[in-house]
Amino acid sequence: MSLLVVGSVAFDSVKTPFGEAHEVLGGSATYFSVAASYFTDVLLVAVVGEDFDHKTADVFKNRPIDIRGLQTMPGKTFRWRGEYSFDLNEARTLETCLNVLADFKPQLPADYCDCDIVFLANIDPELQSYVLDQVKKPRLVACDTMNFWIENRLEALKTTLKRIDLLVINEGEARELAKEPNLVKAANKIMAMGPSSLIIKRGEYGALMFSAAGIFAVPGFPLEFVFDPTGAGDSFAGGLMGHLSRSQVHNDEVIRQAMIFASVMASYNVESFSLDRLRNLTYADIESRFAEFKKLTHFETL
Amino acid sequence: MSLLVVGSVAFDSVKTPFGEAHEVLGGSATYFSVAASYFTDVLLVAVVGEDFDHKTADVFKNRPIDIRGLQTMPGKTFRWRGEYSFDLNEARTLETCLNVLADFKPQLPADYCDCDIVFLANIDPELQSYVLDQVKKPRLVACDTMNFWIENRLEALKTTLKRIDLLVINEGEARELAKEPNLVKAANKIMAMGPSSLIIKRGEYGALMFSAAGIFAVPGFPLEFVFDPTGAGDSFAGGLMGHLSRSQVHNDEVIRQAMIFASVMASYNVESFSLDRLRNLTYADIESRFAEFKKLTHFETL
Repeated sequence: MSLLVVGSVAFDSVKTPFGEAHEVLGGSATYFSVAASYFTDVLLVAVVGEDFDHKTADVFKNRPIDIRGLQTMPGKTFRWRGEYSFDLNEARTLETCLNVLADFKPQLPADYCDCDIVFLANIDPELQSYVLDQVKKPRLVACDTMNFWIENRLEALKTTLKRIDLLVINEGEARELAKEPNLVKAANKIMAMGPSSLIIKRGEYGALMFSAAGIFAVPGFPLEFVFDPTGAGDSFAGGLMGHLSRSQVHNDEVIRQAMIFASVMASYNVESFSLDRLRNLTYADIESRFAEFKKLTHFETL
Repeated sequence: MSLLVVGSVAFDSVKTPFGEAHEVLGGSATYFSVAASYFTDVLLVAVVGEDFDHKTADVFKNRPIDIRGLQTMPGKTFRWRGEYSFDLNEARTLETCLNVLADFKPQLPADYCDCDIVFLANIDPELQSYVLDQVKKPRLVACDTMNFWIENRLEALKTTLKRIDLLVINEGEARELAKEPNLVKAANKIMAMGPSSLIIKRGEYGALMFSAAGIFAVPGFPLEFVFDPTGAGDSFAGGLMGHLSRSQVHNDEVIRQAMIFASVMASYNVESFSLDRLRNLTYADIESRFAEFKKLTHFETL
């Protein structure tokens, strides 16, 4: 039961209607691994620059997160600067400085190759395939992507899609990838590209899961205070894959519960900037919000 | 157990990416009453012009819809012309001809005043209050409104809100009425204006219900074919109030089921233009989709 994640570690500068944060810790692999660490052991693969200090790495300490796969390269850590308006569903990117991420070629420590669950966060699909070449016999492979790769690396992305079990993307990306505005039709077209399951994230509206078992819908958790949506999708994926990693079977019941754990982690994450809320949770907090999701959605059959 | 609805009967001309319909039957009271008629007896109050013929009125025939309150006035029936892009959540109004609706002053047949449930569809809030002046002792009053009244008749609307139990509006209207982007805060502000319960409709994303019992969320039903969203909100309200009308108690369990019946009726309605799908349902179709909603949203507790 070990969960491998390959993605980014970043310094984010974020402005929302409720405040701003300058050069705070972020990145897909960071949010993912901290969220997943409440459920399972995580093997992290990412790259940072020489400006990434020990104090910043504290977020991984005292957690079951193995950071031997966190390479340090000459240069600066990846930086992202963005802002959100009152519509917190969509970030506006102001600046992206790839820095060390530009030459990242993920090399897995030898024992990482035996991992049984893999999450390929949003990086170049060629690198996603390169990671899959290294892992031996995973029982589940999931990946994320974004509009940039759909528009600029479509063939490489299609190659990756043929090798994965589960794709986790947002609504706009699903429509763009399938070239189809209707989400049900888009989901069917995407599953014909390779993945047997598809999760479509819809920001504050929640998420949909499509698989052979049918469709499962979970609403977003109604929150009175949302400070920063950055990392919500990666926290979602962390909760999802974390629960799947600790579960022996992946039947429909387990997968639906994984979708709820995913939604729980995303809902906590947006309550603060950076990982401030996510890193300070207890497992009781997670169970408590899981129960609140039940109350939010339950109704009696006829 | 009788349900009174006051609203519009209209001829709609609608264009969507999937086709168009010219001068077809529509209007809030029409969609509402046909949807509600699968659950309960409906008393309809609305106005039509001399161009509204017996053949068109067939939609109300052989249903428990009392149309003695459907007045005919000199002039033409209300007309609405609009279109939808691929984002089917938002209609663009191209033309509104109030016609006889401009001078509508709803007069209830004497026995209508004993109704026990009232739905005030989207009309001038002064007329909504005028209707409430006529009903004797309803056990539940709900109403709808729209941005036009929020912007142009706010004081009259606030007076109506003080007299109702349940407000059913869409997301954008809720934010505008409360002057608050966060939906949970907006809901609390709106409930402080009068209604003890609030339903916020979110188009294809479903709906949220706020009340003293907490929040209940229902996702939209994922449909492969959506032809025309016109009337979805009124069909939703019809299913909701129809189930509440036939239920002796209005506890949280009943209200949650009413939200599902509401969502079922809205999901069927959008599958065809005008009332083509809605009027041709069987109650078995309704129960079947109710069960599908359970499958769509159910997960096991921990």
